[in-house]
Amino acid sequence: MDRKYMKRALELAEKGRGFTSPNPMVGAVIVKNGQIIGEGYHEKFGEAHAEVNAISSATESVEGATIYVTLEPCSHYGKTPPCSNLIIDKKLKKVVVAATDPNPLVSGRGLERIRKAGIDVVEGVLEAESNKLNEVFNKFITTQTPFVLMKYAMSLDGKIATHTGDSKWISSEESREHAHHLRGYLSGIMVGIGTVLKDDPQLTCRVPGYPNPVRIVLDSQLRVPLDSKILKDQDEAKTLILTTEHASLSMRREIEQIGVEVLTVPEQDGKVDLEKALEILGGKGIDSILLEGGGTLNAAALEAGIIDKVNIYVAPKIIGGEEAISPVMGRGVETMKEAYGLSDMQVTKMSEDIFVEGYLREGQ
Amino acid sequence: MDRKYMKRALELAEKGRGFTSPNPMVGAVIVKNGQIIGEGYHEKFGEAHAEVNAISSATESVEGATIYVTLEPCSHYGKTPPCSNLIIDKKLKKVVVAATDPNPLVSGRGLERIRKAGIDVVEGVLEAESNKLNEVFNKFITTQTPFVLMKYAMSLDGKIATHTGDSKWISSEESREHAHHLRGYLSGIMVGIGTVLKDDPQLTCRVPGYPNPVRIVLDSQLRVPLDSKILKDQDEAKTLILTTEHASLSMRREIEQIGVEVLTVPEQDGKVDLEKALEILGGKGIDSILLEGGGTLNAAALEAGIIDKVNIYVAPKIIGGEEAISPVMGRGVETMKEAYGLSDMQVTKMSEDIFVEGYLREGQ
Repeated sequence: MDRKYMKRALELAEKGRGFTSPNPMVGAVIVKNGQIIGEGYHEKFGEAHAEVNAISSATESVEGATIYVTLEPCSHYGKTPPCSNLIIDKKLKKVVVAATDPNPLVSGRGLERIRKAGIDVVEGVLEAESNKLNEVFNKFITTQTPFVLMKYAMSLDGKIATHTGDSKWISSEESREHAHHLRGYLSGIMVGIGTVLKDDPQLTCRVPGYPNPVRIVLDSQLRVPLDSKILKDQDEAKTLILTTEHASLSMRREIEQIGVEVLTVPEQDGKVDLEKALEILGGKGIDSILLEGGGTLNAAALEAGIIDKVNIYVAPKIIGGEEAISPVMGRGVETMKEAYGLSDMQVTKMSEDIFVEGYLREGQ
Repeated sequence: MDRKYMKRALELAEKGRGFTSPNPMVGAVIVKNGQIIGEGYHEKFGEAHAEVNAISSATESVEGATIYVTLEPCSHYGKTPPCSNLIIDKKLKKVVVAATDPNPLVSGRGLERIRKAGIDVVEGVLEAESNKLNEVFNKFITTQTPFVLMKYAMSLDGKIATHTGDSKWISSEESREHAHHLRGYLSGIMVGIGTVLKDDPQLTCRVPGYPNPVRIVLDSQLRVPLDSKILKDQDEAKTLILTTEHASLSMRREIEQIGVEVLTVPEQDGKVDLEKALEILGGKGIDSILLEGGGTLNAAALEAGIIDKVNIYVAPKIIGGEEAISPVMGRGVETMKEAYGLSDMQVTKMSEDIFVEGYLREGQ
C-alpha cells in the first residue's frame, strides 16, 4: 500500500516539472482510514510546498493521518515556514518519504525533528523513482553545477543530416515534440556559435504555458550576428553569450547594448572551457542545461566530462554518406575500451522511432 | 484453439532453420479429440516433409484427425511423394494451414486436391508469422535471387569502429553470438575484398552442427592474397570469388588451381554489378546472403537495391570522431526524403544492446 500511495505522490510531483526550479519537484498524499483525504504538490518556485498544499486540500482533519511525501519535509525557514513544523502542529501520525533531502547541509534534519515529536517515520519507499524525478535538483544542490542533458536525433546508420546538410526531418513529429518539451523543463539551452550562424535558431520553448530556457551560446570569438534571433526579445527569453578574452571589446559592447549579457570564461585550446563555463552558469542559478549542439559541441562536451544524461531519438531510416554528419564528431576515442559507456539505459518506441535515455557512467 | 496449435507448428518448423534450404521450414501438428497425437517438421533438405513426420509420429490412428501445417501441403512429386495424397489416403478430416505455397506455379493446388477429396480446409491461421518464418524461401521461389540480410553493430553515435580502426568489441557477447548464428542460417556470406585484406577473416560458422555458408568475396581486380583464410579448407566451406573482366587471367588461374571458383560478373563503374551478381548467385542455388560488409559495401548494396532486411545491434556506447567509421558510407542520399525507410521494425533489448530488425520498404 505504501508503494501505491507513494506512486500517486510521485505522479503529483511530476506535474510541477518545468516550474519548480531551482527547487525540487515534490508531491504529497494524505491517507486516513485507508482513504486519500488530501493531495498536493509543489506547483511553482516561491509558492507553497507539497505538504502545505496536501494538508490544506484535506477534506477532513489530518490529525492521526499518514502523509506520503516524495522528499523529506524541510526543516528550515526559506520562502515558506518549515513543513516539518506543520506536520507536527497538525498532529499527523506517520510520515512516509521516498528520499531524504540530497542537500548534505540539511539531509535528515526534517525527519529527525518529526521523529522527536513522536511521529512514525518510514524512509526509502520508491526512493530510486524519487531520485530520478529530481536528478536535476540532486546534482545541482550537491555540486552547484548544472545537470547537462545532451540530445540528438539520428538515423539508424548514425547520421544527423545528409551529406548536403539536410536534416528536415530525421525523427517523427512525436519525437520532435518530445524533444521540444525539454526546453520547457530545463532552465538553460546551449548551442555553439556554428548552430547560430548556420540555422539562426530562436531556441525558445513554444509549448504554451512553459517558461523559456536561458539561451546560452558558446562564442569564443564573438561572431554572433547582431541581427540573430537569439539576440532578440530579451524580455521573453534571456540570452547569455559565453566568450573568451580573445573576443573583440567593441563587439562585446554592441551585444551588451542590445541588453544581452556577455560572460568571459577561461579558455582551453582557444575555445570556451566547458567545465569552467558550467561553474559560472551554476553560480548564476542555472540548474540544468539542454545541450542542442551539433557533432562538434557534443564531442567537446563529452571530452570535458560535463554530460550527465543523453536523450537519443533513433529514426528507422538509413541515410548513408561518408561525408554525412555524425552526432558526435571531434577526434573520438582511440580504442573501444575508452568508449563512453551509458548506464541505466531505457529504450522505448516513440511513434516509429526508438527513444533511448541513458546516463554517462561515473568517472567518464 | 486453431492459433494455439498453429503456434506449436510454427515452433516445430523453426527447428529446421539452417538445414532445409532451399526448401522452406515447415511444421505440422495432428490433433484428435482435443489432444495432440502427432508432431513433426521438415528437418533437413532431401528428407521427409513435416506432414509425413507428423503422421508417422502419431500415437494413434490419424483417421478423422485435424492436421495443422504452417505451409500448404505439396501436390507434386519431388524428392518425396506429395503430402496432399498422404493426407487424403490417411483420411484426415480437416486441414488448417497458415500460408499457401508462395510458388506461383503450384500455389493452391495442394489445398484444391484436398478439398476435392471432401476434407475441410481452413487457410490463413497465423499467416503473417509463417510468411516471416519463410521470408528467405518466399523471396527466392518468386524471384530466383537471394534474400539479402545486411547486419552491423554500431555505437549509439553511429560508429562501427574508432578512428584508429578498433572495433573489438562494439556489441555485447550475446549480440555477437546472435549475429554469428546467422552464418548458420543463411546459405551465403558476402564481404568486399577490403574486409579480406584488412582482417583476413575465415567467415565460417563456428556453431557446432551448423553448415558453413558459401563464402562470397567481391573482388573486381582479384586482389585476394593466395594465402587468405577464405581460400583454405574448401572441403569444409566453399568460396566464390566474384570479379570483373578487368581481373588478371593468371591470378584467376592461380585461384582456380586452389579449387576456388571464380565468377566473372558484369561491371558497373569498375565494380562488380551487385544486381547481376545476385542473379548469378541465385542461379547457383544460393537462396540467402548475409552481408557482412563494411560501410562501403553496405552503401553500394543499398544503392543497388539488393537489401531485403537489416539486423542492427546498437551498443550503449559513444565513440565519437569525425574520422571514425560509419556503418553506411558511400555518397549517401541528398535529402531526407530520399532516405531509405525501414518498415516492420522490431526493437528488442539484447543483453545491454538494442537489437533492431527491419525491412527495406518496397521500391527502395
